[in-house]
Amino acid sequence: MTHLQWQHITGPRVLVDRFRAQRNIQRMQQKAIQAGVQLRPHFKTHQSVEIGRWFREAGTHAIAVSSVRMAQQFESAGWRDIMLAIPLNPRELSAINQLAGNCSLTLTIESADALDTIRRLSQDVNLMIEIDAGYGRTGIDWQQQRLISDLANQALQLPQVRQVGLLLHAGNSYQASGDSAIQQVHEESLQRLAEVKAHIAEPAQSQLFVSAGDTPTCSRMQSFPGVDEIRPGNYVFYDLQQQHIGACDWDDIALTLACPVIARYPERNEVVVHAGAVHLSKDYLLSKDRYEGRPCYGQVMQISEHGWHGKPVDGAFVHGLSQEHGKVRMPPALIEQTRLGDLLVIAPAHSCLTMAAMHDFMIIQGTR
Amino acid sequence: MTHLQWQHITGPRVLVDRFRAQRNIQRMQQKAIQAGVQLRPHFKTHQSVEIGRWFREAGTHAIAVSSVRMAQQFESAGWRDIMLAIPLNPRELSAINQLAGNCSLTLTIESADALDTIRRLSQDVNLMIEIDAGYGRTGIDWQQQRLISDLANQALQLPQVRQVGLLLHAGNSYQASGDSAIQQVHEESLQRLAEVKAHIAEPAQSQLFVSAGDTPTCSRMQSFPGVDEIRPGNYVFYDLQQQHIGACDWDDIALTLACPVIARYPERNEVVVHAGAVHLSKDYLLSKDRYEGRPCYGQVMQISEHGWHGKPVDGAFVHGLSQEHGKVRMPPALIEQTRLGDLLVIAPAHSCLTMAAMHDFMIIQGTR
Repeated sequence: MTHLQWQHITGPRVLVDRFRAQRNIQRMQQKAIQAGVQLRPHFKTHQSVEIGRWFREAGTHAIAVSSVRMAQQFESAGWRDIMLAIPLNPRELSAINQLAGNCSLTLTIESADALDTIRRLSQDVNLMIEIDAGYGRTGIDWQQQRLISDLANQALQLPQVRQVGLLLHAGNSYQASGDSAIQQVHEESLQRLAEVKAHIAEPAQSQLFVSAGDTPTCSRMQSFPGVDEIRPGNYVFYDLQQQHIGACDWDDIALTLACPVIARYPERNEVVVHAGAVHLSKDYLLSKDRYEGRPCYGQVMQISEHGWHGKPVDGAFVHGLSQEHGKVRMPPALIEQTRLGDLLVIAPAHSCLTMAAMHDFMIIQGTR
Repeated sequence: MTHLQWQHITGPRVLVDRFRAQRNIQRMQQKAIQAGVQLRPHFKTHQSVEIGRWFREAGTHAIAVSSVRMAQQFESAGWRDIMLAIPLNPRELSAINQLAGNCSLTLTIESADALDTIRRLSQDVNLMIEIDAGYGRTGIDWQQQRLISDLANQALQLPQVRQVGLLLHAGNSYQASGDSAIQQVHEESLQRLAEVKAHIAEPAQSQLFVSAGDTPTCSRMQSFPGVDEIRPGNYVFYDLQQQHIGACDWDDIALTLACPVIARYPERNEVVVHAGAVHLSKDYLLSKDRYEGRPCYGQVMQISEHGWHGKPVDGAFVHGLSQEHGKVRMPPALIEQTRLGDLLVIAPAHSCLTMAAMHDFMIIQGTR
């Protein structure tokens, strides 16, 4: 392993491999075309106007975000079809009204109470009703079919509402591991969604739009029956959690954190890097087989001339984080070669949170 | 419980109770005076020039930080005695040189290798040698007394080095609970530090400066034998972790996150707020007795006219976080009263990471 010689990297720095990210973007676009669904990537993963352009170049015109702040950011950057894929916050009425005046805005609700806010809008919007098909975070329980039908038809009567739809995020796919487990979540979710749809009364029924999406199912499954639009986000970068689920290969991971070694402890098979909870986030991966039973916040990748390549370095992972320090388990031979100030390139457990924590990043060409 | 009527809070917002924060600042200043030690607060907790001024008004002139970026920020704001309390990163030589030209800069090292970087400085610095007295993160093991003595005397010979000292962060106090456990960590650490000091050869021995500090011991202990300077940070805000350790009372917690309710689930005793991992961070508190065996990312506080008061609401805590969503366990009676868009005021498990994630905050007067 030779160490990255980029002398202009002084502290912890996010690296984005453009080749891999663009390949991930194009691959998902191709899949959507083949499956006959629209692709609405979730931009919370990168929150970057510049990376947003890579999606546009690949044919994306509709996006999802999870805060009004992100919607404002991308509306300012010229995006004209934006979905707020998080339940409506009534306190943001004024900002939402302004957004809806500037672009085609889709809001998410999950109760009749939220219609009080919709009634106060002076602009038109599309309205998604979030369905919980087993994940247990947000959405109306899929078994409440009468409630969902009534809400869809109530919503459709509001003069502010152009179109009504159903929104699903099957986040329970993050608990899966391997294609058959992902497939099981996928089929169960879509079957439940179909059942909900079948019970929606007219006039909402015949004009209902269905949006579903999470990175594991969108990455591994090929068809999306009953769905008009898929909405994955993390696939632009992927990360250790996605690799563990089986949603991607090592070569698909397009985001890492370059961080300098600031202390060496050969006697305990450890180095400490300047990269802590404020850089990697405290999200971790637990695995029965890997990481000696410890939480893993990131894995050390093998550095190549243009970035990183192949699988992670065996036995080299971040097992402890404080605010600015990261404790990295390393094999003795590697510690022997490592000097103070050397850079380690670490693939984070969860790339969305690393990107959100760091805001800033460096684009590298990557290896073809 | 009446809900906060501040209509200008639309999304997740950090609230800083000025009365409590200033009381925390003054109390620690008083303790340092009574104990006959200098106080060098660690500014990584707030990273705010404005809150920095509250410390200055209370008599602080020396500060610690944990990144060159923070050192630059506070140097620009007029601070002239800054310690980088993290092992030296050789890649930042140029920025360090510049800082050392503008203020009295203290660096931290923990190996002879780091002296190669010190030799390349064109400005003078103070140099702390970090000692590990049992925490196991960074620092030279306290039992390596010969190594430490040699390093101190080697360092002192460099023309760039004004003064040499020992630096301790007894972060193992974060595993303690209650005064006697905190006292045990405190006494053991200082005893080990004294032993290290006693074995340092002249000329370093007689001019050695000793800096120690972590919020639990500095908050609960009254004397700091053998120590010239204490270096706590988190005490300006405190948080659930500190309360759990016994380092503070509920009334000392000076930072919360106000966040809107965006979904209600009476059937599962839960609401969802717009406040996720990018706001609260994924740091949590585990407790055998509290939180039904779940991780707790934050607790819901009782809202008062000028902020929040008293103890947290019984049985109301954040037990799950995704990027922008927080799942809050709540008693049925409270959910009954809670409407979409109501604000919850949540004390985070770890206030430093919440502040680092949010950057921005709102100062409230607080209740006297």
